[in-house]
Amino acid sequence: MVLSKRSKYAFNPIDEDNELAAKIMKSGKKVMQLNRGDIAIYFPTPKYIKDAYIEAIRENKMGYTQSRGIPELIDAVIERYKRMFRIGLSEEDIVITEGVSEALYFLNASMLNPGNHAVVFKPYYTQYIPNIELSEGKAYHLDYDEKRGWDIDTDELDRHMKKMKERRGIKYIMITNPNNPTGTVLGRRTLEEVVELAKNHGLALVSDEIYDEIVFNGAKFTSVSQLAKGVPHVILNGASKNLDATGFRIGYMIVPGEDKESMELKRKFEDFATVRVSVNAPAQYAVAEAIRNVKEHKRAIGYMVGEIENRVNYAMKLLGENPYLTTVKPHGAYYIFPRIDLKSLNYKKDKEFVDDLLEKTLVQFTRGSGFGAQSHFRIVALPEKKVLGEAINRMNDFCRKRAR
Amino acid sequence: MVLSKRSKYAFNPIDEDNELAAKIMKSGKKVMQLNRGDIAIYFPTPKYIKDAYIEAIRENKMGYTQSRGIPELIDAVIERYKRMFRIGLSEEDIVITEGVSEALYFLNASMLNPGNHAVVFKPYYTQYIPNIELSEGKAYHLDYDEKRGWDIDTDELDRHMKKMKERRGIKYIMITNPNNPTGTVLGRRTLEEVVELAKNHGLALVSDEIYDEIVFNGAKFTSVSQLAKGVPHVILNGASKNLDATGFRIGYMIVPGEDKESMELKRKFEDFATVRVSVNAPAQYAVAEAIRNVKEHKRAIGYMVGEIENRVNYAMKLLGENPYLTTVKPHGAYYIFPRIDLKSLNYKKDKEFVDDLLEKTLVQFTRGSGFGAQSHFRIVALPEKKVLGEAINRMNDFCRKRAR
Repeated sequence: MVLSKRSKYAFNPIDEDNELAAKIMKSGKKVMQLNRGDIAIYFPTPKYIKDAYIEAIRENKMGYTQSRGIPELIDAVIERYKRMFRIGLSEEDIVITEGVSEALYFLNASMLNPGNHAVVFKPYYTQYIPNIELSEGKAYHLDYDEKRGWDIDTDELDRHMKKMKERRGIKYIMITNPNNPTGTVLGRRTLEEVVELAKNHGLALVSDEIYDEIVFNGAKFTSVSQLAKGVPHVILNGASKNLDATGFRIGYMIVPGEDKESMELKRKFEDFATVRVSVNAPAQYAVAEAIRNVKEHKRAIGYMVGEIENRVNYAMKLLGENPYLTTVKPHGAYYIFPRIDLKSLNYKKDKEFVDDLLEKTLVQFTRGSGFGAQSHFRIVALPEKKVLGEAINRMNDFCRKRAR
Repeated sequence: MVLSKRSKYAFNPIDEDNELAAKIMKSGKKVMQLNRGDIAIYFPTPKYIKDAYIEAIRENKMGYTQSRGIPELIDAVIERYKRMFRIGLSEEDIVITEGVSEALYFLNASMLNPGNHAVVFKPYYTQYIPNIELSEGKAYHLDYDEKRGWDIDTDELDRHMKKMKERRGIKYIMITNPNNPTGTVLGRRTLEEVVELAKNHGLALVSDEIYDEIVFNGAKFTSVSQLAKGVPHVILNGASKNLDATGFRIGYMIVPGEDKESMELKRKFEDFATVRVSVNAPAQYAVAEAIRNVKEHKRAIGYMVGEIENRVNYAMKLLGENPYLTTVKPHGAYYIFPRIDLKSLNYKKDKEFVDDLLEKTLVQFTRGSGFGAQSHFRIVALPEKKVLGEAINRMNDFCRKRAR
């Protein structure tokens, strides 16, 4: 056997679904792809960020950088957290990573022993799972409460932690706020309760806040970093979504605490950074400028979030016309995650629904089971209204015909 | 314990040595740092590559890319191997990575089970070890033969493989050609014998060829991909050295074989790529152009290798004046790796030598023990002759005084 046992966990279920779409496109047909959360396709990266990137290249900022990241970018992140959340960070608290993807590797390799668990609520961002499993850990799954707007049922969390902590070796609780794929923004009260539970059960808390500025429909975002003093916590964030720079692959992980476990974590994340030398140099300079130029950023993010809100709400209106779907209203990110009445549509699985829809209407969504939710699908609500409307109308017609 | 057991292997011994230099520089003194192999500091990245990078940004090539890498870059790599080595590759054989660093992670996580071994010759490139150990594997160390110009003693390799293969679970043999830190270019005959041994013992072969165009002093480079048909082999390469683009973090891994094990490896490396979505987008376009523009590349690499040859040979001449050093002549890369007569200089360890040298002369080299060789140090021979000469002369004076 040339392959290791754990290599079987290197696997992306969503990526595999693209094979059917690729086959259809190869035959010359045009597919409406509403399946990739790549904001830079729909909103070109702002000019001031591109200019900063080009400037860094012109100035020959092309060598290896500090493994932790360039001081300019780390300072920009410190400023950002002070400005947005009144959190005081220092250089030692921050490591720049190759997107949140690499942060997930550092996180799980640093924390999980074989057999250890991480609490992951369903539906989850797909990539959490292979990263946990490649460290030979396991996800301990609980469900976000769809009936209460995909909120966290903290009583249920408490019950499970009491029951399972000792037996399973749970190392951390992972939350995603705003959420991919549901678009939920967790309320301050819920977050306070989760922090309290993490504290009581002696667990670390990891909060993936990569969409923290893409919040709308009246919601207010609270960062775990504002509430979790005294509880070891890790914040995952980056340039991809808020700064509309997915292809830069610049993320960061923050460990604000001064407790013993937080100190161990922040040092270890830096150790992992030294093993891979450094992150793309000119992209780091571009992101430093993108964060520091508050005026330009406010203009860009203001426009973008306004547009996303319009598109999401327009899609929601059209989805409301489909009696075979039930959809929780999103307040953040740019995804919509309807529940499918599989029975009425005569499907056994969500995969059958999205594959059949793709073949018959040439509209591609992502099956919910790729995110751990079995009767759902994810819409990326980034395309302009005309495209979004056309795709949803095709799906609505398809469902009506199918249900007859 | 918040940290996992295996996280202790995330550690870079060379990086730690920088603390003393940082302390000295903080006190206001200027240190001559001949310790970082960052070619882009000494030779600015060629303009045609920077222009291609800027062009990609202007054209908004800023989103996620295919996990395997953009087709343009993969095609460029295919062309390169056809042009340079007459090897026929297909798209499925190549995965673009975040530098060779990420390739080392994919490689070891894909192949090593806990307790498995990889043959790593000493001296080795430092980063091999944490990557092997983070997969809970172990390096099975043999020595390059310093007396025969750091060549591989293939008889010794054969003996050890016979003895150890079954007992230790050896998965692959790693070679570095041209070598960091010794500057050795392995001869075709040696490589043929290593391929033969890998075949006989049923082992995979991994060849890190990141310096494959930086070859001089009359040496000729042979790629393992030219010889290893029928033996599962992985070639590691990238933009950092040949293209003078260290800070882009663009590497690639190639599995040319069509045997069962090669097929499993190439598919698995792509699986790992999907887990982290993709690599920096505009840098991939820049590297595609850097490889494809053969005329500009030839001019740039020709100048660079000529300069490196001059600098290395100039340094070698000065090192020859120091009776306390013995140095194998380099034929590739840009490192020199002298053996120190520790006894005459009254040191117990190479670390004492380089630390004392740094404190007393403000010249920083890297201790050999960071590469697994206990009585050596590494010189990065990239600075211009004036700087290189000044640094080596200071060291020579220091040794003379010390030995009195």
